[in-house]
Amino acid sequence: MTPAVPASEEDIIQQYLAPLAAGYAGAFGLRDDCATITPPPNTDLVIKTDPVRAGVHFFADDAPEDIAWKALAVNMSDLAAKGATPLAYVLALSFPSIPETPWLARFAQGLAAAQSAFGCHLIGGDTDRAAGPLSIAVTAFGVVETGKMVRRGTASAADYVYVSGTLGGSALGLKLRRGDADTADWPINSDARSTLLTRYLRPQPRLALAQALRAHATAAMDISDGLCKDFDRLCRASGVGGRLDLSRLPLSVGAREIVAAAPHLNDLIWGGGDDYEILCTVPQSQAEAFESGARAVTVPVTRIGLITAGRHVTFHKADGAAMPINTLGWDHF
Amino acid sequence: MTPAVPASEEDIIQQYLAPLAAGYAGAFGLRDDCATITPPPNTDLVIKTDPVRAGVHFFADDAPEDIAWKALAVNMSDLAAKGATPLAYVLALSFPSIPETPWLARFAQGLAAAQSAFGCHLIGGDTDRAAGPLSIAVTAFGVVETGKMVRRGTASAADYVYVSGTLGGSALGLKLRRGDADTADWPINSDARSTLLTRYLRPQPRLALAQALRAHATAAMDISDGLCKDFDRLCRASGVGGRLDLSRLPLSVGAREIVAAAPHLNDLIWGGGDDYEILCTVPQSQAEAFESGARAVTVPVTRIGLITAGRHVTFHKADGAAMPINTLGWDHF
Repeated sequence: MTPAVPASEEDIIQQYLAPLAAGYAGAFGLRDDCATITPPPNTDLVIKTDPVRAGVHFFADDAPEDIAWKALAVNMSDLAAKGATPLAYVLALSFPSIPETPWLARFAQGLAAAQSAFGCHLIGGDTDRAAGPLSIAVTAFGVVETGKMVRRGTASAADYVYVSGTLGGSALGLKLRRGDADTADWPINSDARSTLLTRYLRPQPRLALAQALRAHATAAMDISDGLCKDFDRLCRASGVGGRLDLSRLPLSVGAREIVAAAPHLNDLIWGGGDDYEILCTVPQSQAEAFESGARAVTVPVTRIGLITAGRHVTFHKADGAAMPINTLGWDHF
Repeated sequence: MTPAVPASEEDIIQQYLAPLAAGYAGAFGLRDDCATITPPPNTDLVIKTDPVRAGVHFFADDAPEDIAWKALAVNMSDLAAKGATPLAYVLALSFPSIPETPWLARFAQGLAAAQSAFGCHLIGGDTDRAAGPLSIAVTAFGVVETGKMVRRGTASAADYVYVSGTLGGSALGLKLRRGDADTADWPINSDARSTLLTRYLRPQPRLALAQALRAHATAAMDISDGLCKDFDRLCRASGVGGRLDLSRLPLSVGAREIVAAAPHLNDLIWGGGDDYEILCTVPQSQAEAFESGARAVTVPVTRIGLITAGRHVTFHKADGAAMPINTLGWDHF
């Protein structure tokens, strides 16, 4: 039996997507050409667009719920790093072939779970068919008090550098998802494997940290292309230098055992992508208050380095030796 | 000699795209993770996302300036129909291979011309490489006085139906662009051919009409999937019926001669896509004021039909006979 497919673009929108817009008046039930947002007084709208595509950001045969979650989560992670509170998103879907209705139903369930977890609503979008991989382009909207967006380029010399959560889990989870041969030898149990895999499939944006970032961070960004590369970007944007102590990095569950057995995988801790943790800088005088604010929302944060004057960015191993960074991190080209 | 390519994603952004963001403070020079919009007091932000892809919405070997223009224009056309004033846009680019620098330079020139013509600024985006066609996803932002967006679903019985400009030009221009064999027989001169082709390559959003729409229209939408299909949508969304007099349709230059010689091409007048004209409904009592408002901004408008009670939507030829609509218009699936 051939699985059912939707009758038309309109059918996809009204049956699967419109329920996700029901909670937001400016979505007009996805029956208009545009959506409206009326930002609360004295706020800025914070805007991010980060599309995901099969074969690049996820696998075409990942669970539809996971694909949906990830498409939204990677955008929310940016809002979190900017100290913004999620509000809404638009969604442009491009399918290589007409999706089957069970896939669409599960995809919509994943979006529903994600928008409920993140506190936002679908308000508009577009659906079409085109050659190429499944593409899901989210543009996300958050709000922040006027002028209070936490910038990337505003770190100062002598600030401490913090990272939320743990690193490397997603890059290791990707190896599990691909079934790389060497993963069979990893000295970790099935629970730890499952945790790493979930880390790759279902990134958790650190929205709970937004308030502490607004209150205490001088600069922040989310880590999507690898810690070292993104730290380098933050320092360049700020016109400062910095050093990270790689021995201080908080490792994801199982990662310590894995890199002990296969030291070359250390590259995935500091250079792997898809962490979706927050990298931020905090004046030393506010370090205690920041850590306390993070504890209050149960988001672990770890101090991993220092911003310095000048433009030099360095990465140090436990013995203090500097590591070269030229091969670290992900470039989309 | 191999043409030069940019060194990195960062290079594309800073060299070709950042200049387009220079006029908008909330773009942060495209050096931050997110952009901000601070809407003026008492306004709603009006939001539209309508991606375009090579092979679907344009040809991969179209002039880069034209591709850029079209990507922005199709989104601005929606803002115009909603009575909104353009403000800003974000841009997600996906390249099948690293674009050559001359192509990028021309693409950026096309964006610069378009945003200057439409009155908006690039404020953010994303660039990556993925298998599949070149994809350009614009999300556009406009402003309108709070609650004043012109809706699609608010037409009333007895309203007149208007269309801006002329119809069919883009669909005929597409045939020229493809070099369809029958176009050689069209009884029009090279100037008219060039005008039709330009109509397809460089749609002109009717932004000048926004004020008259806000003041007088009960409902409006832009025509992108063919007049009859889009009129049917407007009526359904409004819970009304309507009739269009096909003999009243304003035809693009050369179209009258072409369909006189090849009557089957009439389908392209009322069912072809990419018109990017505005379809709107106006109370009879305001018809004169609306026409006067349109004249004041030199946008031609033509009364082509009437909204009726009930749910019946009909299309009438010159002799009054109703035409079936089941085969008219474009569905993305």
